[in-house]
Parts: sequence; C-alpha cells; structure tokens
Amino acid sequence: MLSVTDVTRGDTLGDAGEAGVLAEVFAALADQPTAGVLVGPGDDTALVRAPRGSVLATTDTMVRGRDWLDEWSCAEDVGVKVVTQNLADLAAMGGVGTGLLVTLVAPPDLPLAWARGLTEGIAWAAARAGVPVVGGDLSSAPAGTVTVTVAALGELGEGVARPVLRSGARPGEVLAVSGPLGRSGAGWQLLRAGAEASGQGRQGPLQALLDHHRRPLTDLTQGPVAARAGATSMIDVSDGLVRDADRVARASGVVLELDEGSVHSIADALVPVLGQDEAIRQVLSGGEEHELLATFADPAAVPDGWVLLGYAVGTDAPGVRLGGRRLDPSVGGWDHFGG
Amino acid sequence: MLSVTDVTRGDTLGDAGEAGVLAEVFAALADQPTAGVLVGPGDDTALVRAPRGSVLATTDTMVRGRDWLDEWSCAEDVGVKVVTQNLADLAAMGGVGTGLLVTLVAPPDLPLAWARGLTEGIAWAAARAGVPVVGGDLSSAPAGTVTVTVAALGELGEGVARPVLRSGARPGEVLAVSGPLGRSGAGWQLLRAGAEASGQGRQGPLQALLDHHRRPLTDLTQGPVAARAGATSMIDVSDGLVRDADRVARASGVVLELDEGSVHSIADALVPVLGQDEAIRQVLSGGEEHELLATFADPAAVPDGWVLLGYAVGTDAPGVRLGGRRLDPSVGGWDHFGG
Repeated sequence: MLSVTDVTRGDTLGDAGEAGVLAEVFAALADQPTAGVLVGPGDDTALVRAPRGSVLATTDTMVRGRDWLDEWSCAEDVGVKVVTQNLADLAAMGGVGTGLLVTLVAPPDLPLAWARGLTEGIAWAAARAGVPVVGGDLSSAPAGTVTVTVAALGELGEGVARPVLRSGARPGEVLAVSGPLGRSGAGWQLLRAGAEASGQGRQGPLQALLDHHRRPLTDLTQGPVAARAGATSMIDVSDGLVRDADRVARASGVVLELDEGSVHSIADALVPVLGQDEAIRQVLSGGEEHELLATFADPAAVPDGWVLLGYAVGTDAPGVRLGGRRLDPSVGGWDHFGG
Repeated sequence: MLSVTDVTRGDTLGDAGEAGVLAEVFAALADQPTAGVLVGPGDDTALVRAPRGSVLATTDTMVRGRDWLDEWSCAEDVGVKVVTQNLADLAAMGGVGTGLLVTLVAPPDLPLAWARGLTEGIAWAAARAGVPVVGGDLSSAPAGTVTVTVAALGELGEGVARPVLRSGARPGEVLAVSGPLGRSGAGWQLLRAGAEASGQGRQGPLQALLDHHRRPLTDLTQGPVAARAGATSMIDVSDGLVRDADRVARASGVVLELDEGSVHSIADALVPVLGQDEAIRQVLSGGEEHELLATFADPAAVPDGWVLLGYAVGTDAPGVRLGGRRLDPSVGGWDHFGG
C-alpha cells in the first residue's frame, strides 16, 4: 500500500529544477503497464492504441484548498483521488482507461517529496486499473497555488457496443447504484469535526469513511459490467446523488423517483457516526463518491452487488423525487462557483 | 478576426455560477466541426473517432503571470496560444488534432467576459485547424490564480505511416525549420520595453512580432507535410531553438551543427528592431515560436518554404553546436523552475 510522505524536509521543486522534477516523476512511473502504448512520455506527444476505432476522453482537476486540504490529505491521497475521478467518468460510459496525461501546476517552494508522493499515488491508482501515464505537463504557479489536472483516454470495455449516455433512461426503468453512498461526505464531516487526520490511528467504520474521502477506491469494472448488462443510462456520483441523478433525469426527460426505504437503508450504515438526519443528507448530496448510478429496462438485469434505488417515471418536468416530493439539486451538491 | 473583450465591466464567474459559466462556454462553441465526434461535451466523457486505430495525446497549460500577463494579452490571445501550443505538439509527430479538452481554474471574481473571450479564442484557433472542443472542466481557484489547460487528441496525418519521434536523426542528415524564429521572443522584448500593448496601434513588422507573441499562428499542416516528405526526427520550437534542438540531439545521439549563415539570415529580419546581438539571441533561445524543426536524410526532401539550418554529425557527446562551438541549452531557454 502507499505510504504517507514526510514533506517537511528536503528539496523543493525550485531546488531540483524542471529536469530534476521530471527525473523524479519518471522514476515513480518506471513500472507501468505498456501494452497499449506505442509512444510513451518524453516525446512531443504520446501515441496510444485505440483498437476499437474510437477514444473516450475526459478531464478532471483538483485544486489545493478547494478539492483537498493539506492537513487532511497527503500527496498520495491526492494522486489516488484525481485518477479515480477520471477513471470513474470513463467507467460511467461503459469504458476502461488506456492512458493518462497529468499536469502539475505548483510554486517553486513546493517540496519535491510532495511531487514524488503525488506521482506515486497517481501511479498506484493507475496501475491498479491497468492504465499507463503517457504524458503530462509541469508549470510554475503563484505562491500557494497547487493544481493537479488529469486527462484520461479510454475505450469502450470488451463486449460494450456503444457508450452509455446520460440521456437513455426511459419511463418504467429501474434505477440502481453500484455501491454505498455518502461515505466521502461523511469522512469529510468527520475530518471537519476534528477526527484524527493522520490516517494511522482509529480502525473500523470511521477509518473506512476517512479512507474513502481521501482515497476513493470504487470498483470501476462495474461500468463495463453494467453496460454489458444493458444499462440504458449511467453517471458516476461525483457531485451528490440528487445532483447527478438530476443530470440523468434532465438529459433523459424523465423523473427519477428515489425509494425512501432504499435511501434509509443506505444511510443506516452512516447513522451511528453521523446521526439520522446527517446520514440521509450525505446519502442524497455527498459528493466524490464515485459509485455508478444507472438505469436498466429489466430489473433482472441489474448486476450482482448493485442496490436498487428507485425507478424512472414519464413527465413534463424532469427531475428527482423522494417519496413524491421534488428534490432541489442545488441544495447540498457542489457548485464550483455557487453558494 | 477575434475581437478584444472589455473585461472591466459586468458579471463575474461567481455571479453566474457553474451552470451560467458553462452556458456561456457552450454558446461560444456552438459552431464547431463535429464530423469525428461521436459524443461531444455534456456527458461523463467525450467519444471521438480514431479511424487509424491509435490516438496521439498531449497536454499544455498556461498560468497567468507566468505564461501571460493581463496587461499584454487579452483572453482571446490566451485561448489562441494554448490551442496552438497543443496542436504544434501533434504536428511535430506528423499528426493533426481530432479533439480538445479545456480546463479553466479561476477565482470567483474573474470576469465572465474573460472566460467568454478565452472560449472564443480557443474556439477560433480550434476551428481554424478543424478541431472540435469535446469536453473540459471548470474549477475555482485561490484569488489571483488563473490557469488554462488544454489536452489535445489527434491522429497521424493522411499518408503518415508512423509518428516522427525526436530520436530518429542520423549523422549526415540535414536540419531544417518550417519558418522564421525569434518572433515571439522579440515581441515579448518589445512589450517589456513598453511598446504599445493595445494591439490596435502600430502596423508593420513591429506589430507582426507583437501578434506572434500574443497569438502564434504557425502553419501546422507542415507537420504532416514533413512526415510525408520523410522527416526522420521532429519537434516544435516551444522552449527555444537550442534547447529544443538539444532534445532531438540527445534523443538521437547526434550533434546538431547549426550553420552560422542560416542563423544570421533568420536573425536579419529582427535586427532593425532588436539590434544584432539580441536578434541572434532570440533566434537561438526565444521560446513559444511553434515552428517545426526536423531532420531529413535527403536535402532534396526538405519541403518548400522550409529553411535549411544545419546538419547532424556523429558523436559521443550529443548536443548543439554553432560554428563549431558547443551551445549550452540551459542558457536562455525557458526552465519552469530554474534560474
């Protein structure tokens, strides 16, 4: 497993210079999978195989102070998380990763050990998914600013004939999710409330929530599994269940009716830690979960391990409902520039 | 041609919210080429055709205060430049663009008009090259920080059988460049010396240098042209001739011997503006030029319009020489974290 780097001592990016930083990065990327890579890092561009004749492409960025706090997350955590975010987007199309581009924008006083830890986190999460880092960029930033951007390339999974869009849900279909919800938001609440931040201390359910907030490790193979099973629409839960379900509902022109019993049942695992109200709030609006939310025409097609969450209803006013009551996606979920 | 936006009035990103900003962005991208796009912006990922069975991938980022100054460059300039940088990397492999991912990281007080201008610059430069924007990300940043990151997908140009790497130069081959050098660096020197910054005033050679610094518009179709003509190695001049030639020399294991007459001849166009010494310095070390530098086994194969610049020599100590004297790539060229 990944370590936690001590970044309080040693060289900075400025001490090492661009070539020195790149040498560290390449060292951390030495043992990558290379089967699909025709040209890897170090030339003007990478060249990656696309045997299916098409390429999935997405990008997701993390900003220090916005998407992570150094007090709560080490460099390795950030690396794991930014890779998971990107690969979850590919999974939500029924895809798998084929290559990553990584951009670090950081001030010269950033510890070199932090950049190394970031790269190790990225390499670890990428290798876990069998995806190579094929290129990237490095740029200096104003003091205090650190941003990590990953662009992910992918292809449709084996046996997946077409991408699963947000727009394919139809009235009468069932809605299901690939795993629990609210864990990352619960972990964030725990950290905010002063739970231990070292990652070494407490074990058990609390630690699992902290871990999922820091290093979400969902089973992204469930994306292609769901696609092969006939998922008609899919999205990963990155901004909260209601907010992401609302995107599917609007793209598809349906209401997604959440089942109260299902929501309470998912929340049960969080109740001992958060209490009833906050547990339900985190299930409905906690972001960065990265489980997959999908609709299926046939309830029997829902893959093993997925949890039924509700169903799609025809409507003139697309959106999300819980127990017949319409939920406002702007409450709770994350808006980068909103209140 | 693109306008220069007045960003001193009106809404900010924070006023508009994430959905409002995205609405502006999508409006500016309404008239894009879509032939190769199977799934465009708005779903979890894009899906782009890759009929050749492989995909070129690269990324390049620009940081306010490092890669541009608001006093000298408007939002449209930044958009054009970041696209050109990425497409030049594809061209240097013998490739053409098939899709762009754009990430804007900016504080809530950034004028919405700036984000719109950026998108218009990106859309303009992308459309000029026939490349669609297929996705992106938007994130808030600490006050004062603005970064723009583009990841570019591409494929080898028509009739190009394999990518042109940096490592293919062999002793006895000729070195050539697709156009003038030193213009962007000269433009930067002019701005630093207080030349008009509005972009509306002076015409003629000075203006052309300022324009090339702000909006480099090289003929990137020359990448596939050179590849078809048999280029054995290629790179785009982004960090300065000596620095980029040094990368080719080291990857190939040769000395690239620059011809003094050729260097002086390229510098001649800059002498009236910069004087002799500074003109030669900018030709050798001025970055952000984005002309293509390539080697060819046969001098007769060098494409029309390219300028012969020297030749490759066998060696135990790869590097760049001018008039028999070894040039230090670390002098003059750009190091993101160096002195």
